[in-house]
Amino acid sequence: MPEKAVPAGRQEKFNVVVFSGDLDKVLAAFILATTSASMGMEVNMFFTFWGLNVLRKNKFTSGKNLLQKMMNFMNKGGAGRLPLSKFNLLGLGPFMMKIMMRQSNVPSIEEFIKMAKEMGIKLTACTTTFSFMGFKKEDFIEGIDAFAGAATYLSEAREGKISYFI
Amino acid sequence: MPEKAVPAGRQEKFNVVVFSGDLDKVLAAFILATTSASMGMEVNMFFTFWGLNVLRKNKFTSGKNLLQKMMNFMNKGGAGRLPLSKFNLLGLGPFMMKIMMRQSNVPSIEEFIKMAKEMGIKLTACTTTFSFMGFKKEDFIEGIDAFAGAATYLSEAREGKISYFI
Amino acid sequence: MPEKAVPAGRQEKFNVVVFSGDLDKVLAAFILATTSASMGMEVNMFFTFWGLNVLRKNKFTSGKNLLQKMMNFMNKGGAGRLPLSKFNLLGLGPFMMKIMMRQSNVPSIEEFIKMAKEMGIKLTACTTTFSFMGFKKEDFIEGIDAFAGAATYLSEAREGKISYFI
Repeated sequence: MPEKAVPAGRQEKFNVVVFSGDLDKVLAAFILATTSASMGMEVNMFFTFWGLNVLRKNKFTSGKNLLQKMMNFMNKGGAGRLPLSKFNLLGLGPFMMKIMMRQSNVPSIEEFIKMAKEMGIKLTACTTTFSFMGFKKEDFIEGIDAFAGAATYLSEAREGKISYFI
Repeated sequence: MPEKAVPAGRQEKFNVVVFSGDLDKVLAAFILATTSASMGMEVNMFFTFWGLNVLRKNKFTSGKNLLQKMMNFMNKGGAGRLPLSKFNLLGLGPFMMKIMMRQSNVPSIEEFIKMAKEMGIKLTACTTTFSFMGFKKEDFIEGIDAFAGAATYLSEAREGKISYFI
Repeated sequence: MPEKAVPAGRQEKFNVVVFSGDLDKVLAAFILATTSASMGMEVNMFFTFWGLNVLRKNKFTSGKNLLQKMMNFMNKGGAGRLPLSKFNLLGLGPFMMKIMMRQSNVPSIEEFIKMAKEMGIKLTACTTTFSFMGFKKEDFIEGIDAFAGAATYLSEAREGKISYFI
């Protein structure tokens, strides 16, 4: 893997907005993020909107008022409960995909979160989404590096070499 | 918010292709775009394919031939009529989401368009899509800065710091 | 079209991850890629996950075990058989869209692949996806430039001017 010479103290950055909460897209985000980190890049993952489900606990629902609770009852949280963007088939699709991933030694999303942490990848949860979805910090797993808004993310992204919206 | 020193006359650019016409993704695009603008970046939003619905008027349908009229009857235009990418539920999902946004003082897409204009964000409608979808300039709202194709957009994007496809 | 002066031997790069296998998104990817190439940029298209369907042959199914065969029976390959991301309507949507494209002289995806090859655009098929989807090289069309993983793609993307995830 090519390691580019960069000025001391200024590592190349890979930034990704994880907007989607679909298993397949989140998997792609983690593969790109961990590969970038293994190539020596500094990696920031900004989880927003449906993507926050990756970092949410497996609770029955979340939200501060009835409408938010209704939305978040459908919009289930938990890295192990993500749907597929296609062929979801009431959960059969993700069930099949997870077996296929295990058969080929592709890590699960839970394992990818752990790997990301170990590799020093920064995980940020978007607080703008918190406001209208009614999330609280207690709805989220341990180990999130920052709870921040779009401005914080963009100040990283504008310094970056690669920046994706997934 | 960090303001980077840039050579006079060459402002940092944030470019985004708004391909999606889903309320949630369009909302993310406008949040990123207006935040970038407030951080001093020059922002271009290029609306293409389903994303053009954001800038279309609320007409019954559009199109030059029957096939295009049929497609655009399903593919409704109007910033206030965008579906959700998930949990659309025949319109119940976006209805709930719009109430949730209002409860938390998140601007509506109509308000974001107005804000974008006031902040000097450039809104471009993709003319390549016009050809096969059968759109005419009269199908669109006032205040669009340019009607142009991919080459015009890409000549901006290649100069940019951040460039998303949403 | 503006042609930027670049140091000899270091052409500006446009990189795109084609994750989606939907006709509309793949069309957007090819329009952006071929336009970039015509503007003098070096273009890499990295097909992964559902996007691999663009480069797959029209076979009944693919896969090494029963589970993979079941998944790939639903997940049809072939550039001429891509669904629409919206209004798919059991195939009526893409059928309508393809007529609308032909009426306006927009090339089909098969034609775009040929154009891309002629313009020197590099087409890479993601081998990481191969492992869990059970694909083999024989499942793919002729003319693919490389079969490679995320690291190879990212070493191009980090050198690029524009990099999209579609």
